[in-house]
Amino acid sequence: MNLEGIITALVTPFDEKGKIVESSLRKLCKFQLNKQVNGLLILGTTGEGISLNLEERKLVAEIVVDELKGKLPIMVHVGSSNINEVFSLAKHAVDIGADSITSITPYFFKMSDKEIFDFYLELSKNVPNDYPVYLYNFPTATGNDITPEVIKKLIEETNNILGIKYSSDNMMRIQEYLKLQNPNFKVFTGADQLFYPMLCLGCDGLVSGNANIFPELFVTVFKSFKKNDHKTAKLFHQYGNEIAKLFKYGNIPAIKAGMKLREIDGGYVRRPFRNLCEEEKNKLQKEFSLIFDQILNLKPLE
Amino acid sequence: MNLEGIITALVTPFDEKGKIVESSLRKLCKFQLNKQVNGLLILGTTGEGISLNLEERKLVAEIVVDELKGKLPIMVHVGSSNINEVFSLAKHAVDIGADSITSITPYFFKMSDKEIFDFYLELSKNVPNDYPVYLYNFPTATGNDITPEVIKKLIEETNNILGIKYSSDNMMRIQEYLKLQNPNFKVFTGADQLFYPMLCLGCDGLVSGNANIFPELFVTVFKSFKKNDHKTAKLFHQYGNEIAKLFKYGNIPAIKAGMKLREIDGGYVRRPFRNLCEEEKNKLQKEFSLIFDQILNLKPLE
Amino acid sequence: MNLEGIITALVTPFDEKGKIVESSLRKLCKFQLNKQVNGLLILGTTGEGISLNLEERKLVAEIVVDELKGKLPIMVHVGSSNINEVFSLAKHAVDIGADSITSITPYFFKMSDKEIFDFYLELSKNVPNDYPVYLYNFPTATGNDITPEVIKKLIEETNNILGIKYSSDNMMRIQEYLKLQNPNFKVFTGADQLFYPMLCLGCDGLVSGNANIFPELFVTVFKSFKKNDHKTAKLFHQYGNEIAKLFKYGNIPAIKAGMKLREIDGGYVRRPFRNLCEEEKNKLQKEFSLIFDQILNLKPLE
Amino acid sequence: MNLEGIITALVTPFDEKGKIVESSLRKLCKFQLNKQVNGLLILGTTGEGISLNLEERKLVAEIVVDELKGKLPIMVHVGSSNINEVFSLAKHAVDIGADSITSITPYFFKMSDKEIFDFYLELSKNVPNDYPVYLYNFPTATGNDITPEVIKKLIEETNNILGIKYSSDNMMRIQEYLKLQNPNFKVFTGADQLFYPMLCLGCDGLVSGNANIFPELFVTVFKSFKKNDHKTAKLFHQYGNEIAKLFKYGNIPAIKAGMKLREIDGGYVRRPFRNLCEEEKNKLQKEFSLIFDQILNLKPLE
Repeated sequence: MNLEGIITALVTPFDEKGKIVESSLRKLCKFQLNKQVNGLLILGTTGEGISLNLEERKLVAEIVVDELKGKLPIMVHVGSSNINEVFSLAKHAVDIGADSITSITPYFFKMSDKEIFDFYLELSKNVPNDYPVYLYNFPTATGNDITPEVIKKLIEETNNILGIKYSSDNMMRIQEYLKLQNPNFKVFTGADQLFYPMLCLGCDGLVSGNANIFPELFVTVFKSFKKNDHKTAKLFHQYGNEIAKLFKYGNIPAIKAGMKLREIDGGYVRRPFRNLCEEEKNKLQKEFSLIFDQILNLKPLE
Repeated sequence: MNLEGIITALVTPFDEKGKIVESSLRKLCKFQLNKQVNGLLILGTTGEGISLNLEERKLVAEIVVDELKGKLPIMVHVGSSNINEVFSLAKHAVDIGADSITSITPYFFKMSDKEIFDFYLELSKNVPNDYPVYLYNFPTATGNDITPEVIKKLIEETNNILGIKYSSDNMMRIQEYLKLQNPNFKVFTGADQLFYPMLCLGCDGLVSGNANIFPELFVTVFKSFKKNDHKTAKLFHQYGNEIAKLFKYGNIPAIKAGMKLREIDGGYVRRPFRNLCEEEKNKLQKEFSLIFDQILNLKPLE
Repeated sequence: MNLEGIITALVTPFDEKGKIVESSLRKLCKFQLNKQVNGLLILGTTGEGISLNLEERKLVAEIVVDELKGKLPIMVHVGSSNINEVFSLAKHAVDIGADSITSITPYFFKMSDKEIFDFYLELSKNVPNDYPVYLYNFPTATGNDITPEVIKKLIEETNNILGIKYSSDNMMRIQEYLKLQNPNFKVFTGADQLFYPMLCLGCDGLVSGNANIFPELFVTVFKSFKKNDHKTAKLFHQYGNEIAKLFKYGNIPAIKAGMKLREIDGGYVRRPFRNLCEEEKNKLQKEFSLIFDQILNLKPLE
Repeated sequence: MNLEGIITALVTPFDEKGKIVESSLRKLCKFQLNKQVNGLLILGTTGEGISLNLEERKLVAEIVVDELKGKLPIMVHVGSSNINEVFSLAKHAVDIGADSITSITPYFFKMSDKEIFDFYLELSKNVPNDYPVYLYNFPTATGNDITPEVIKKLIEETNNILGIKYSSDNMMRIQEYLKLQNPNFKVFTGADQLFYPMLCLGCDGLVSGNANIFPELFVTVFKSFKKNDHKTAKLFHQYGNEIAKLFKYGNIPAIKAGMKLREIDGGYVRRPFRNLCEEEKNKLQKEFSLIFDQILNLKPLE
């Protein structure tokens, strides 16, 4: 698997009581496949993975793999505050035939570099030697940060750590990551609003929550960039920023409400999140339509 | 229960493989009872609660309640990233006869004030109307902060939210909390190093991880303060700061290593934490002995 | 001079065009003397010192020293971004008989510890060997921070560095400063809202901008504390917090507007500050009267 | 003047006692002219402008304008904590025929948006209606930040505010500035390390302290980008980052030491800065030579 491009951080659709809605989930998979994204990350931050229990997480992974196996690369997020659960989920992802796993760093507790290194080393060894593992660094959410030194050592001592998702607007740090890049180590940004400049610097792709709503936008940025059409890439990047601002930078209840505007069903959010009220939804709908029409009038949209 | 004074944030003793060691846990309970602390918080940050699964958390709570019921107030931490688990643990704490529960705010995800309010309101309603619930605010670990306005509204709309543990060195904010204080709302600091000045400002007590090692120190600060003996309170507060510096401000592997120096067994830490190596332990032992001897030579130690 | 207690950070009264108003300045001096504060800091942050040119700064110092010499200790702030100007102002303060000088760290440029040390060492040597020099640390305004290690070395290598004013709410750091304290090194806080707990920890006093408006409040906290009357000290500290909130934590235009409410004339602010508009002043007056009446009804006010 | 491209933030050469060295200053001007930069910013942060007195600042401006008038656009930094001095320096720049002025926001004191707006409005009105004025935003040094809303209002209400220099790595904020961009409002970044991605997003150029040492590097990035040669632009951008790391991100004593390695004389730094010691210089020389040789071996260097 040579992963690059747009990876949608898929939402998990729940009913009003918080139960997973399999039919909606399958439809979301079809929608994304149809929109030609390059992969899916399931059960990550946008997927509310850490709000679910072990069985629910396994169920989501099974449904998505069943729906898309062989059609679209699936990356399963296995991070948890309970490390035994991380390994259990990793094993499950391998068993059901998901294409790769990723795990957020340990969170809540402040970790040393050594502890972060040990965590990923152990994770790497809990799956087959050639099974792809991605790091996931989101310092403002976890309080922990993966340094380039730690990554360098992980690349040296393992065979299957193939990349990182970095959710931050720290452009200095990501340039350090990019120096570690090679055919076997990919750097994905998680910041929609920095996607085009990140591509210019050499990033391999974007993991995006807003791509649940508007995958075409990001796909167009990526395809245009690859064709060396900087003008189009920049234009659609700017529209991506308008979308990002509208959805308050990855706010999950807003994303789920936004999906309805595209006639797909992201369902309800799970506690402790709060679903948008009618007034908020109406405001969003109006603002979204405005941008949406502008974008659809642009030619190069794919 | 009129909770005030020193509440030890009890560590959870694990064996080398991460299994709970019941016998050690019971001994720790006896040690704390013997040292005349005013209560125990179990399965909190220092107790590595969120690293355990549901069954393990229930087991720890059952052992401690069995050991200390009627002898020392037990507060059970029920926070989790899975909200269903929070409610399940809360119900369990009530059922086994623990004296109160506390829960950290939702973490990892960024929450709105409304979502934080809703979370605690629902928690409050999931236990009996007169069962004590404490808020737990640790903004640097969770990324979320409980505002005084949210607390005010919670006090108005519930009957059983009786106080807050605030783990931060923000002295401005805690002074705002203290304005909400009344016979039915208590403010506990989680910052050993601000304990004495916090008492002066009106705090009801301290929830301390370092009290696993040296409860006498904090008990003496509190008792001296209550007798209006500011000189002694300040002196022992300063020694508390030396201890805090030694144990790197609540670092759990260091606390567990430190406990051995007092001939009690905190056991191993659970992944993703790393146990101190022999060299680190020896260094700590030497430094600890130095301070320990100084403190033991002081008269008013209780 | 054994400086301790309440040091008012005196405002500098300007007319509408920014010219120093000598008559108002002399009246402010008399007001402060009458209210029994323990000293004045002139031309500091609240005094808008760095907004003035060399001649204006010398003029203010001369007026105040002429008015109060022998009656109230005068500390002259000599900090500037032009280091030659710092030394020139220091020499002038000595020449006119001011009691001591202080200087903010270099600001705007990021300094190394060595550069901060060198700066104060050179300042210390530019005045007589027995002339009192105070450090002034205000990290959020300057971007630079004086570490305890730098202070320790300065105390060792000089004879006349007698203390520090620390404008910050970092209670951990000030406790480190307090460990350096001795009969010849004083620690003053610049945070009104932490004054009482700072006194409990051992601080020598407060340098306060709000004392321009309400010196009695802070004088009462200090005198009560010295008489071991913690109850009164705490009560007036809490009123001090209400005042601080009202004047937005040391906002200079608000302080000057507030002074009018006490029938003293702090004059206009100098550019780039903006004077409060009538509406803002009226709002302030109403809120101030409310608190003022409450405080005047309290008995122990001096 | 249609300013764009590389603007070197010229150092000011001092002798060991802090006196301006005219002959060195003239040589630096010739060096920069020769290297085909697009303009000079004098007396800015790197030029140690705020460490000088009024007469010294005027002298530097006069020398540079005399040397380069008509050959290279000169922007004079007139910012100061004394606002009268700002206006006096602005008038002087106009009088001697400098091409434009810029001023840092007020610093040290915390300013409101209204105060920042008023400051630049007044500055704009203190020079002829068609004389170019540039904003200069460096939030980490000043504690103040120019919001897009303030800029928008300034553009509406003035005729001669032509652009902004933004010294920060906040890529979100600069994208908001870029939305205000038009033929008459230019956006320059002050962050060498973000220069190439900033160009991709639409920035007009770079104001660089490291261009004192290695102007060719940045000139090549800019020229390549203009020719749509992204590959070369990115390559030289990456070398720029190596240089930036070497000179510790714009550290002035290091820049001045570094200039000697290119056989130009930046002179000594002024207090409170500390000149590099011999050991530090030797280390720098060794590291610099290594990168320098690599870069000179690259073909497209201009």
